[in-house]
Amino acid sequence: MKPDGISLDDAVAILERTPAGLSALLEGLPEMWVKATEGDGTWSPYDVIGHLIHGERTDWIPRARHILASETRPFEPFDRSAQFTESQGKSLSELLATFTDLRRDNIAVLVGMNLTDADFGRTGLHPELGEVTLGQLMATWVVHDLDHVAQIARTMAKVYTEATGPWSAYLSILRDRQR
Amino acid sequence: MKPDGISLDDAVAILERTPAGLSALLEGLPEMWVKATEGDGTWSPYDVIGHLIHGERTDWIPRARHILASETRPFEPFDRSAQFTESQGKSLSELLATFTDLRRDNIAVLVGMNLTDADFGRTGLHPELGEVTLGQLMATWVVHDLDHVAQIARTMAKVYTEATGPWSAYLSILRDRQR
Repeated sequence: MKPDGISLDDAVAILERTPAGLSALLEGLPEMWVKATEGDGTWSPYDVIGHLIHGERTDWIPRARHILASETRPFEPFDRSAQFTESQGKSLSELLATFTDLRRDNIAVLVGMNLTDADFGRTGLHPELGEVTLGQLMATWVVHDLDHVAQIARTMAKVYTEATGPWSAYLSILRDRQR
Repeated sequence: MKPDGISLDDAVAILERTPAGLSALLEGLPEMWVKATEGDGTWSPYDVIGHLIHGERTDWIPRARHILASETRPFEPFDRSAQFTESQGKSLSELLATFTDLRRDNIAVLVGMNLTDADFGRTGLHPELGEVTLGQLMATWVVHDLDHVAQIARTMAKVYTEATGPWSAYLSILRDRQR
């Protein structure tokens, strides 16, 4: 257990399973599931995979390196809408393959950093949140994955809200993030 | 599209992916993830898999048969705590394998029913909800899967709530179903 309450092995155990989990849930699904959203301004499963790809490229490992390099300037802000241009013209299958490759490479980089307990307590400057630690960044990477897995399941579930009829009373996910 | 707004192919597309998706996300994870809950009276990922198994055995297909047999008595009530005895002594890996086998068999049974549009409108009597249709039962099976996928992701995410530090402000899943 590291000072911030996480262990690298526990974190990697989640991080390394996300691409296969999302691929198994989404690969080959009809478009009506993959392109569904929860309403205006919300993301489809397709959008979420593009967002995860952008995170692999610009967020987690670059910020870990930023902290380990003892940079004093803040992290680059993360672009939360990059996927709307970057995913254009790509199939979900291509996006899942890209996410899988990037995540595998990033886990190799992470493990190769040979982080010590002391490293987990090293700090960087978030452009909005202020001082954060490397341990907090790693925990956030994990929770961010799980948040988007839940979002994808919730978004697809809502496609069938009306179709469940009276059973909707028992299906609490249909009322999460109601707009 | 059936009268109740679902198509069998779209429903099966989700149902047939759930076991592989959950296995990819959970198989081999450290116990601290698999046995985590959201607090007293809530379920761990391990508990959820046992619950899904009980549904395969006693809920979806038995109720579909009940409707197709034009039974006038209500469905058998579903036991929501069966997994606390039935899963005892079993590893998560065993439970995932059992769920995978039962789901595969149940999808074969479902497809073998050769349901027509008219069948989707046939009705049965739910012990609490009253009249429900076969189409609503099928849609509920799908949403129930997705609800529990989201629950598993949310439950594991909350293990790291404190560890994310100031980032928790951005991770909205950590505030879903707060108790």
